Amino acid sequence: MPSTEQHHVICTVDVVLLTLLHGALHVALLPRDKAPFAGVLALPGGYVHAQEDAGTQASAARVLQAKAGLVSPYLEQLATFSGPARDPRGWSVSVAYCALVPPSVLEQSRGLQLLPVQNVPALAFDHADILATALERVRSKSLYSSLPVHLCAQPFTLPQLQSVYEAVLGETLNKVSFRRKMEELGMLEALPGQLQTGAAHRPAQLYRVRAAFRQQLSLSARGL
Amino acid sequence: MPSTEQHHVICTVDVVLLTLLHGALHVALLPRDKAPFAGVLALPGGYVHAQEDAGTQASAARVLQAKAGLVSPYLEQLATFSGPARDPRGWSVSVAYCALVPPSVLEQSRGLQLLPVQNVPALAFDHADILATALERVRSKSLYSSLPVHLCAQPFTLPQLQSVYEAVLGETLNKVSFRRKMEELGMLEALPGQLQTGAAHRPAQLYRVRAAFRQQLSLSARGL
Repeated sequence: MPSTEQHHVICTVDVVLLTLLHGALHVALLPRDKAPFAGVLALPGGYVHAQEDAGTQASAARVLQAKAGLVSPYLEQLATFSGPARDPRGWSVSVAYCALVPPSVLEQSRGLQLLPVQNVPALAFDHADILATALERVRSKSLYSSLPVHLCAQPFTLPQLQSVYEAVLGETLNKVSFRRKMEELGMLEALPGQLQTGAAHRPAQLYRVRAAFRQQLSLSARGL
Repeated sequence: MPSTEQHHVICTVDVVLLTLLHGALHVALLPRDKAPFAGVLALPGGYVHAQEDAGTQASAARVLQAKAGLVSPYLEQLATFSGPARDPRGWSVSVAYCALVPPSVLEQSRGLQLLPVQNVPALAFDHADILATALERVRSKSLYSSLPVHLCAQPFTLPQLQSVYEAVLGETLNKVSFRRKMEELGMLEALPGQLQTGAAHRPAQLYRVRAAFRQQLSLSARGL
């Protein structure tokens, strides 16, 4: 074999596509249509296409469109998983991505299965590890950024947004601290004159995400 | 070409090896010994060796040993860089890692050039982008974790550690807030009876990093 081919490895992308349903994080899975792991649930994924993809981010967006029929404004590289045993076809590298969407985006899902992340069966390859890594990243990033906002249908009220953060973090938050944090993150804009009415509370202001933060996260600067 | 080879791409690892010298972050660079970019400074890197490497982390550790002659206790995956144009030899993927060491580790450096990160010339491939990504990650992670501790020769005093955080963050910190944050991170242990004397201050307690945090970071839980 020419020496350059020793340096070539199988390269795929995999996407952890998360949404919030019934107050719990759910992940989108597809049964594998061929070996290896035929019939086993897996994250949406596929080979990189060197002829057409500008990079692995483009590969991930292409795979999401092809396998899940959707575009996710929030699509962030998570980590790269590699080694001799994760894929029976040979030493491989998979660049994993995390996508967060509100549940309405998944309504035209085409064969995707949405399972609560607490209750996922055995998955193909090392997708259980990839999922675990994604959940840890989403939870810790939610402590100091605007990340959960991508799970929220817009426009939303602050109590709705707070319950999304609480579902992701798995804990209740102090309302005053939460509102102060949202102020600090500065990623919301109130929709003038738009209030949510009809529930057992006084009309609540509706918000959406400011344009600057629809694909980029707002990060809290408060640290040291 | 057999169809599986379309899915094989060039895969390398690159390491951003950082240290602190004269209060400023420095990066370790090597001139390339062959084309492409022969003679141009580059990050230490190399192909993954599918026959021997357990994964890209092992590849990065092997490359650090081979090209820089050292082991870094802190070696963390940074991000994967990919595309058709970063390497003239073809579509490629490089899994980049970040390593932080105290300057004494680099004394036996063997041909490494240590340059201040503010003053790095044109680099091979997309290594300037990789370096920029590493610096952003190190700075933001330093706001809420024990990361800078890996740049510090041990044992150290709290004022010494504070000046390391300040050099990484590029700002002075409030001494009381800093000490409170170090308490919260809980990654230090005082060396009983060991004080640093002889400077123009009263003897200061010496500390080292607790065993649990020599390879794992301590992350601040304070968020929402």
